[in-house]
Amino acid sequence: MTIPASTPEHLFVATALNSWKLVTGRIDKAIAALSDEQLQRQVAPGKNRVFYLLGHLTAIHDRLLPLLRLGERLHPELDEAFISNPDRSQPDSISPIALKEAWSEVNRALATGFETLTPQQWLERHSAVSEEDFAKDPLRNRLSVLISRNNHDSFHAGQIILIRE
Amino acid sequence: MTIPASTPEHLFVATALNSWKLVTGRIDKAIAALSDEQLQRQVAPGKNRVFYLLGHLTAIHDRLLPLLRLGERLHPELDEAFISNPDRSQPDSISPIALKEAWSEVNRALATGFETLTPQQWLERHSAVSEEDFAKDPLRNRLSVLISRNNHDSFHAGQIILIRE
Repeated sequence: MTIPASTPEHLFVATALNSWKLVTGRIDKAIAALSDEQLQRQVAPGKNRVFYLLGHLTAIHDRLLPLLRLGERLHPELDEAFISNPDRSQPDSISPIALKEAWSEVNRALATGFETLTPQQWLERHSAVSEEDFAKDPLRNRLSVLISRNNHDSFHAGQIILIRE
Repeated sequence: MTIPASTPEHLFVATALNSWKLVTGRIDKAIAALSDEQLQRQVAPGKNRVFYLLGHLTAIHDRLLPLLRLGERLHPELDEAFISNPDRSQPDSISPIALKEAWSEVNRALATGFETLTPQQWLERHSAVSEEDFAKDPLRNRLSVLISRNNHDSFHAGQIILIRE
């Protein structure tokens, strides 16, 4: 995901992508450090399990593929358990090891896709906004989605970290 | 904090600033919705109180003023209680109402400062990196600090939200 930082526009994109890599990398490390038992713990009494949050983040990342018009989703089946329904509303439909692999797989696909986008393409509309609405609000671009999801990752990373001893 | 979004460079900056406003605004709302009793609660058993997190975020935002070379700090006295030391290591040195006012005051100063920066100035070095090191890594710019602190806000916002019923 090396971006030639030769122009101001490339620098803006590289700065945003650098934050994405940092935050995603921190979640990778946090998850890798957890035992299977810790993965099942709730981040606070009555709140989401780390397992659920990992599934949630994986599903949200997977949705970025079509949202940024980078390709088809890899794991649409995750939505039912990790977006449409709250934690512990049904038996887990995926094993911890398969979920960790899905998280890595989706992030690899995103990294590959990010590399293909030029700075100008980062300022193009994301797929959930119409051409007409985008003309009224040019901030509804791909980059705003990246920054928004980056903050969403951090939001839940702050919760995941709470289960550390 | 209106940025004329006339050029690609302005659009990049406006997109990042829009995220800053969104996240800061969400923390404003979350804090405003809390009673004094809730402000004293720990986000999870044995973890930081919301009061401490608000002080921590205020001190970190205050540090942005010199870090982005926008001016002197307004509340350097917060560091002792909210950065240098962990929560509950000493009696609170500031009242909840004064802390909330400091949070708003610092954010107003930042918003005013952000308005003065051109896109090119967002790509200039932040004050904690030398000219020499910046030449080697142009990503150590003001914008990277903004995005990093934006994610830091989200990280702790994810914790603050846990005390909602």
